[in-house]
Amino acid sequence: MVRMIMHGCNGKMGQVITEICRKDSEIEIVAGVDPYTGVENAYPVFSSIEECEVEADVVVDFAAAGAVDSLLDYCVKRRLPVVLCTTGLNEAQLAQVEETGRQVAVLKSANMSLGVNTLMDLLKSAAKVLATAGFDIEIVEKHHNQKVDAPSGTALALADSINEALDQAYEYKYDRTQERKKRDKKEIGIQAVRGGSIVGEHEVIFAGMDEVIEMKHTAYSKSIFGKGAVEAAKFLAGKPAGRYDMKDVIAAGK
Amino acid sequence: MVRMIMHGCNGKMGQVITEICRKDSEIEIVAGVDPYTGVENAYPVFSSIEECEVEADVVVDFAAAGAVDSLLDYCVKRRLPVVLCTTGLNEAQLAQVEETGRQVAVLKSANMSLGVNTLMDLLKSAAKVLATAGFDIEIVEKHHNQKVDAPSGTALALADSINEALDQAYEYKYDRTQERKKRDKKEIGIQAVRGGSIVGEHEVIFAGMDEVIEMKHTAYSKSIFGKGAVEAAKFLAGKPAGRYDMKDVIAAGK
Amino acid sequence: MVRMIMHGCNGKMGQVITEICRKDSEIEIVAGVDPYTGVENAYPVFSSIEECEVEADVVVDFAAAGAVDSLLDYCVKRRLPVVLCTTGLNEAQLAQVEETGRQVAVLKSANMSLGVNTLMDLLKSAAKVLATAGFDIEIVEKHHNQKVDAPSGTALALADSINEALDQAYEYKYDRTQERKKRDKKEIGIQAVRGGSIVGEHEVIFAGMDEVIEMKHTAYSKSIFGKGAVEAAKFLAGKPAGRYDMKDVIAAGK
Amino acid sequence: MVRMIMHGCNGKMGQVITEICRKDSEIEIVAGVDPYTGVENAYPVFSSIEECEVEADVVVDFAAAGAVDSLLDYCVKRRLPVVLCTTGLNEAQLAQVEETGRQVAVLKSANMSLGVNTLMDLLKSAAKVLATAGFDIEIVEKHHNQKVDAPSGTALALADSINEALDQAYEYKYDRTQERKKRDKKEIGIQAVRGGSIVGEHEVIFAGMDEVIEMKHTAYSKSIFGKGAVEAAKFLAGKPAGRYDMKDVIAAGK
Repeated sequence: MVRMIMHGCNGKMGQVITEICRKDSEIEIVAGVDPYTGVENAYPVFSSIEECEVEADVVVDFAAAGAVDSLLDYCVKRRLPVVLCTTGLNEAQLAQVEETGRQVAVLKSANMSLGVNTLMDLLKSAAKVLATAGFDIEIVEKHHNQKVDAPSGTALALADSINEALDQAYEYKYDRTQERKKRDKKEIGIQAVRGGSIVGEHEVIFAGMDEVIEMKHTAYSKSIFGKGAVEAAKFLAGKPAGRYDMKDVIAAGK
Repeated sequence: MVRMIMHGCNGKMGQVITEICRKDSEIEIVAGVDPYTGVENAYPVFSSIEECEVEADVVVDFAAAGAVDSLLDYCVKRRLPVVLCTTGLNEAQLAQVEETGRQVAVLKSANMSLGVNTLMDLLKSAAKVLATAGFDIEIVEKHHNQKVDAPSGTALALADSINEALDQAYEYKYDRTQERKKRDKKEIGIQAVRGGSIVGEHEVIFAGMDEVIEMKHTAYSKSIFGKGAVEAAKFLAGKPAGRYDMKDVIAAGK
Repeated sequence: MVRMIMHGCNGKMGQVITEICRKDSEIEIVAGVDPYTGVENAYPVFSSIEECEVEADVVVDFAAAGAVDSLLDYCVKRRLPVVLCTTGLNEAQLAQVEETGRQVAVLKSANMSLGVNTLMDLLKSAAKVLATAGFDIEIVEKHHNQKVDAPSGTALALADSINEALDQAYEYKYDRTQERKKRDKKEIGIQAVRGGSIVGEHEVIFAGMDEVIEMKHTAYSKSIFGKGAVEAAKFLAGKPAGRYDMKDVIAAGK
Repeated sequence: MVRMIMHGCNGKMGQVITEICRKDSEIEIVAGVDPYTGVENAYPVFSSIEECEVEADVVVDFAAAGAVDSLLDYCVKRRLPVVLCTTGLNEAQLAQVEETGRQVAVLKSANMSLGVNTLMDLLKSAAKVLATAGFDIEIVEKHHNQKVDAPSGTALALADSINEALDQAYEYKYDRTQERKKRDKKEIGIQAVRGGSIVGEHEVIFAGMDEVIEMKHTAYSKSIFGKGAVEAAKFLAGKPAGRYDMKDVIAAGK
């Protein structure tokens, strides 16, 4: 039984993960951390990570970006593997993540779902063949009307993944309406649609001469991100220091 | 047999229409107009409309916006109905179109296809019900990588059509990446994708709480615009002065 | 405050509706009926409708088809309006529904969502124009891998709705793989896809010469059916005898 | 300059390829074969392959399946590499293809487009990961209303490609409407939509718990199949005996 600390336990994703772990016999939440304490949980909740002295095997983080610094300090001090699901970290924090990975096991991912991470892998293979053959690449993402950032972190991660495969600096293009010019070959257009309660849809379009390939991921509920985080936690517990990502979790599951 | 003048006969659409008329026994191109004369046609071609003295029943225009002024003068003088397919007219030209419509039959449309015009009509009914019920409205359009303007004239026409049904209060939003804020209720997001040789795709998304309705038009070749223009020409020949649109052509065909 | 009896209160949809009513101050569940009694509810639950003597304004039914006969008898005897959401009724039951509608208000719908019912209306307008213009009509529906019937009741209702607009002459075609022949003009193809936990997707395709119009509804959770049923119940309470459908509920909400 | 014989030169695809080669300076059609001789071509046309004594480097075949036997004999006798694009071969013919490949270079593919062949490759990687993770796999293909066979050869090739990757006998399921039962895990549903002039659309759906991945190919004109065949011909000219496929052509182009 893996013993887990849920960092950000009273947020939306923290509660989704609490529910998933409640039904999973291989993992148990032994403590939660959240400055907001108005939720009842079956485990003890601390208002900051420093106060938490419960024995554990792994931490899962779905808190605000501001809480990451002290979390990483804590994981190094306690030799605890950590799954980082929070996005929007600044440069200094990304450097600290890098540094932390030299001392404990760290898994960081922009999107925890099996589907998106599989898509990311497929995109690399697709981009190599299709960009060489002259196909243009564009991304359209759709999310609910409460999301404040655009494009989504996942859309950017997909674009980065393609760009990495193309070994070239494709520029990201967010708005085509402010100029009158033909599309540049070395661009990846990224468009954001917002509406209703759409959980998350990402479509990558490879458009060539008289043919188009589309690869699309649709999330129907936030639980897929929670499930991915829990699988990642089980995988990471007991692992040596280093940087891991969801691809390792997927490979281990095969 | 309807006798037609093809204004802009040597451009891409002019040639598509020439081919369509060649196979249609109800209409005949009796003259063409184009400053570029390097194409062989079965009809006489003049380098400007003023030089054309051939008897005709209707003019179809797919030339550049700059040539519209003299075309309208010509149609008024000759009492000739005119199908205007050119987009990107300026304010003064739009006023002249209005004025011309008081003296001869004028049909102007941002998109000549039966499908898009049917969609435009459906969108009005849909928008009334769904916006009232709290659905958000967004548009995604996709075109080939040679198109210089964005969003497409058709996307704007679809949005205008929705806005008309909603009493004009919605703002168009082209880029969500430059700010961090929730979607405003009174917005229609319009996103432009460019790639390959995509002829034209327009998708309107109505996103509500846990349900989404999408209405999408896909053009597989430019010939649909040509066919629409030819149907419009047949319809307009002999009609009294006034403003017409593709809806009238569709209604007459039922 | 509308007082409602939830017939089939302990099934999946019964519980979804219980939750929706709990948060809605305009309606209250005053009694439930279910042969299965292993669920705790805030209202009294009876194992058959005959035993329920609680005062109410309307009944919502999401039980098994077999329980409909006694429910309809009960509604007639007690002069209670009834919202019938159960599908798969046999001929005799459909006749009884018809008969019941002469004595109390009856609303029966294959799909309770606002979106699907709006789509159904739009399809009628679309079908008239597009079928006349030679477009072929096909339907693809997608549902989760636990669904036992195919095609879905909603897909059939959409097809019926189109057929009604076209004067009933189109045949439904479920399988094209068992013969080698061209598509017949007077067909509506209906294809069923099954997989994962897909809640429900219905796409209607109008395919013409070089252009296609698609109209698609996606359900992201069962709650949209529950919300529709609750809106229907509020609408139906107090209404005179007669047959009603979701279109009336939508029209009243505008 | 590669010298090519076009087998089936006066059919739709034969003419598309004739046009492509006319504009391509690396390849030339030196002779055509077709029982129907009512088309004018810039090269000599023979009514059967046996009569053609023109020197060549490769044959491209887009004729009827019945003409394949004598074509293969001819290629063996003349030591000519052959690109087989005709589908619907019977068992005996498939055996003869196998045999021919031991003596000359043979490339046979159900679909000549770069896009579809890339998709086929991606599907194998996707299927391995996603089927293991419990995703269901379904295919929907769409074609014009003149196509007599269903499902398309390409849909079957995609399914075969997935099945190969899964090392297991997944059964193909064409019709779900004739029985009331849950989806079997070891199935690939294949659905055929027919309408209008749709050139060819293939969508593979991986449906999991609360997430779906879709991979889709859209053909906008038949020219993509022609271009693929011409690329294949250039690639195959001069190659040693053996079986080749489009994957080899794509790999060589990278």
